[in-house]
Amino acid sequence: MEDVGFSRRILLSTLALVPFAVGPFRASPALAQTGTDPLPSWNDGPVKSSITDFVARVTSEGSPAFVPVDQRIATFDNDGTLWIEQPMYIQLAFALDRVKELAPMHPEWKSKQPFQAVLDGDLKALAESGEKGLVEIIAATHAGMTTSEFEKIVVEWLAKARDRRFNRPYTELVYQPMLELLAYLRANGFKTFIVSGGGIEFMRPWTQKTYGVPPEQVVGSSIKTRFEMQHGLPVLFRLPEVNFIDDKTGKPIGINEHIGRRPIAAFGNSDGDLEMLQWTTMSGGVRLGLIVHHTDAEREYAYDRQSHFGRLDKALDAAAVNKWTVVDMKRDWKRIFAFQ
Amino acid sequence: MEDVGFSRRILLSTLALVPFAVGPFRASPALAQTGTDPLPSWNDGPVKSSITDFVARVTSEGSPAFVPVDQRIATFDNDGTLWIEQPMYIQLAFALDRVKELAPMHPEWKSKQPFQAVLDGDLKALAESGEKGLVEIIAATHAGMTTSEFEKIVVEWLAKARDRRFNRPYTELVYQPMLELLAYLRANGFKTFIVSGGGIEFMRPWTQKTYGVPPEQVVGSSIKTRFEMQHGLPVLFRLPEVNFIDDKTGKPIGINEHIGRRPIAAFGNSDGDLEMLQWTTMSGGVRLGLIVHHTDAEREYAYDRQSHFGRLDKALDAAAVNKWTVVDMKRDWKRIFAFQ
Repeated sequence: MEDVGFSRRILLSTLALVPFAVGPFRASPALAQTGTDPLPSWNDGPVKSSITDFVARVTSEGSPAFVPVDQRIATFDNDGTLWIEQPMYIQLAFALDRVKELAPMHPEWKSKQPFQAVLDGDLKALAESGEKGLVEIIAATHAGMTTSEFEKIVVEWLAKARDRRFNRPYTELVYQPMLELLAYLRANGFKTFIVSGGGIEFMRPWTQKTYGVPPEQVVGSSIKTRFEMQHGLPVLFRLPEVNFIDDKTGKPIGINEHIGRRPIAAFGNSDGDLEMLQWTTMSGGVRLGLIVHHTDAEREYAYDRQSHFGRLDKALDAAAVNKWTVVDMKRDWKRIFAFQ
Repeated sequence: MEDVGFSRRILLSTLALVPFAVGPFRASPALAQTGTDPLPSWNDGPVKSSITDFVARVTSEGSPAFVPVDQRIATFDNDGTLWIEQPMYIQLAFALDRVKELAPMHPEWKSKQPFQAVLDGDLKALAESGEKGLVEIIAATHAGMTTSEFEKIVVEWLAKARDRRFNRPYTELVYQPMLELLAYLRANGFKTFIVSGGGIEFMRPWTQKTYGVPPEQVVGSSIKTRFEMQHGLPVLFRLPEVNFIDDKTGKPIGINEHIGRRPIAAFGNSDGDLEMLQWTTMSGGVRLGLIVHHTDAEREYAYDRQSHFGRLDKALDAAAVNKWTVVDMKRDWKRIFAFQ
């Protein structure tokens, strides 16, 4: 069995030479095999140890907890776990911006809810339009174009949109400790997936560059598409009809449908991740469940049980029962964003 | 750019050392980089050249047709493209065997169609029960258990089931030239996916071992599942309700949903693959579309336009128009199965 350890070392050194295999992380200063700290933005303590201990156990040949490389599946929620979700989900900010951009083509929106509320910046009226209003906004902004056109819209929006508090592009508002964790797991043979309630096609255009996660390893909510010929060429046209909601019990269902294996590590931050964490950790072997608890109002945000976006209530109680790791962002993270 | 060529060579040599990365193909005698023929079961000629020319063009640094490794996606139909589909789809043989196995628990089936037809071996009455009958059989045999239980049922069935004509396990009735093609593409940086009308959970238990394709690279038809707790542990329970049909226009839709990238090569054998081939090849760049034409009644089967399973009619006409490669099994394949 010595061979495999040797081979993994070779594989890791090789990866460092191959630009495509490591993408944005090739300049990462700390990978497991170098002997330096692979998680430099994490403070030492039981939380950090729970991660490194888990990885050591499942990657140690001969250990009863050993897991072969092809079964090292790790799933990450996105909103609030990899990037910010306050004061609202970034995809919702995208939808509201799109309504404003499309408004000149829809003069009727000036006096039609929920669009009027968006155009007037009346968040109270928008909230009152409820789920029905939200569905109308999503349909108006996310459907009615081909998948290629939608991708272009997302990329262009992300390039110019800025978070108001931090005055940064959203793709810079990703958690540095979690980027290190993604890279650390991959360096130890894990395949990292995103499993998010957010739109699968909203995420795919930027997850490779931002997280090192390729499109085929992104699971998310989706709307239906229709295959058709436009000017003699095949396209997929986005329809205003829900296909799949990748949240709560939808997460294990989406994982099973897309990945077809049970993860051995899962990372979330809200009640939307509860069932994914259960599905991952309650399966017998040595498993890692981890919850990011937003406790740092100064450097980011502090919220949990009463939050509108990313509510963490049942999952926080379940964490104690199931011995999931709970990250206290204020205590456990040296820095939150790369620019801090 | 010299670096990348060098790195790919290192990567390939490394793969040869790492058992998990190459799986069942580590003993394969012919990979691209050795200088020996990577496709030894293919006769020389325009069909074989169309494959090797395509691979040479998209992998040549500096060529206008060059495709970066992460975009080298290849999708393969399964039934009739990677393994046999005559005299009936193997998954249908599975369903019929399951009906017989479950019959003692369902005494009413003895006088209830379509089950009676299955138990009596009356294929004519079975055909007369039509799509409605088929749906009842699938619901009775594919739903009503957890995903883990279903996986076990499939594995146990495959271990003992034998094809009548060849008296072999079905996993030996896979096309040797296509196994070589899968390995050849992977050796050239391609990620190989199965995109089949067959059940996604019927395929996943054996595709890694048989084709070197891991579960997360299998796309197929599916039924809905429900997340629930059984005896305090989470399970996914299989429901008698269609979730997705991965056939015809469903193939590009399933590819987009699961992979999120457009393939640059696609392989099929029937009209069910037409839209996948269109979606793959009609996108501007240098692309490969390939159809396996079953022309060898002696070594396998000969069928196309009038066939009940795997009908090849529109797609054969489209192949001429779109310059897709058409494999004449009798002419182009030295051998069809490894045991021949």
